[in-house]
Amino acid sequence: MPERPLLNQLIDALRCLPGVGPKSAQRIAFHLLERDREGGVRLARIMADAMSGIRHCRRCRTLTELDLCTLCANPNRDGQLLCVVEQPSEILAIEQATDFRGLYFVLGGRLSPLDGIGPDELGLDMLDARLQAGEVREVILAISPTVEGSATAHMIAESAARYGVTLTRIAHGVPLGSELEYLDGGTLALAFNGRRRL
Amino acid sequence: MPERPLLNQLIDALRCLPGVGPKSAQRIAFHLLERDREGGVRLARIMADAMSGIRHCRRCRTLTELDLCTLCANPNRDGQLLCVVEQPSEILAIEQATDFRGLYFVLGGRLSPLDGIGPDELGLDMLDARLQAGEVREVILAISPTVEGSATAHMIAESAARYGVTLTRIAHGVPLGSELEYLDGGTLALAFNGRRRL
Repeated sequence: MPERPLLNQLIDALRCLPGVGPKSAQRIAFHLLERDREGGVRLARIMADAMSGIRHCRRCRTLTELDLCTLCANPNRDGQLLCVVEQPSEILAIEQATDFRGLYFVLGGRLSPLDGIGPDELGLDMLDARLQAGEVREVILAISPTVEGSATAHMIAESAARYGVTLTRIAHGVPLGSELEYLDGGTLALAFNGRRRL
Repeated sequence: MPERPLLNQLIDALRCLPGVGPKSAQRIAFHLLERDREGGVRLARIMADAMSGIRHCRRCRTLTELDLCTLCANPNRDGQLLCVVEQPSEILAIEQATDFRGLYFVLGGRLSPLDGIGPDELGLDMLDARLQAGEVREVILAISPTVEGSATAHMIAESAARYGVTLTRIAHGVPLGSELEYLDGGTLALAFNGRRRL
């Protein structure tokens, strides 16, 4: 049997992108071939490099092609502040929106024993060792306030207490510009329980 | 200056995909890195091959990595029927929706002298030579009924008349399931002018 046309192979391969169905895959393939070959060549090269080269930072577990990511390797970041997030993408969001100048630690998920995600999978032993080392003064939890997130937070709280590290959590509540009547009940309940004196 | 992190390069490079902004590019990058490296590796390889290998079929001008595309090379297709389309993507649509078993010719656009698109850019000389060769009995125009499309159709009509080839045009009118009151006026006018006796 002869090999399938390269165009059809490309359209099929594009389906691995999230949210791309058969029609979008066709549209992308024709766009690249007819209007932006240069962009396509560049994307193919960088994607190949990224897929084979990007691993996890040995210190914060974020995605990087380096042994130590640029944030961990940056001497201007404040090593006394450690923000714990679930996913590497959350680091980008925090870096873009806030003036946080500390370091990060990426769990890669939440405790969920039924899915085989225990403390080891989340690197809680690495985090514990890091708190034990003594540089970190404050751990800031940026973990979702779900049941699994709370269980995860609880284990980190134990580590922090053991080594006398301050533990804080980012505020959960009503987002800017949202209307109370359309907000989900869980968020509104969190906002009420977390109210502060003015 | 040190090179930018590969992750950021990947997010930037993904912006060349149509409809992908900064947030979607991030989402795609993290999806590939965390959930589908295999798909990413495959996509990168096929994309690189496609960008460098896919050219135009020397006979019908569609996109293919072969000298002669699989449709033109297929002896079971009816060479007496030639469907003229504007873009290679339209061949896929026609192949998927109809039982047309003839061959195609891709213009790659419409006559638009102001944009530097003349008869040569559309391959009208190739099309003329093909009609002169005598195998084609009917040319089916699947060109949009705009001003530029009509000018293009007019030039093809001259070729067809010169060599005694039948010229037809696919029907333009009200699509299935659409409501007249929401249809654009141009389409409705076409449908009225193109009415047929029952």
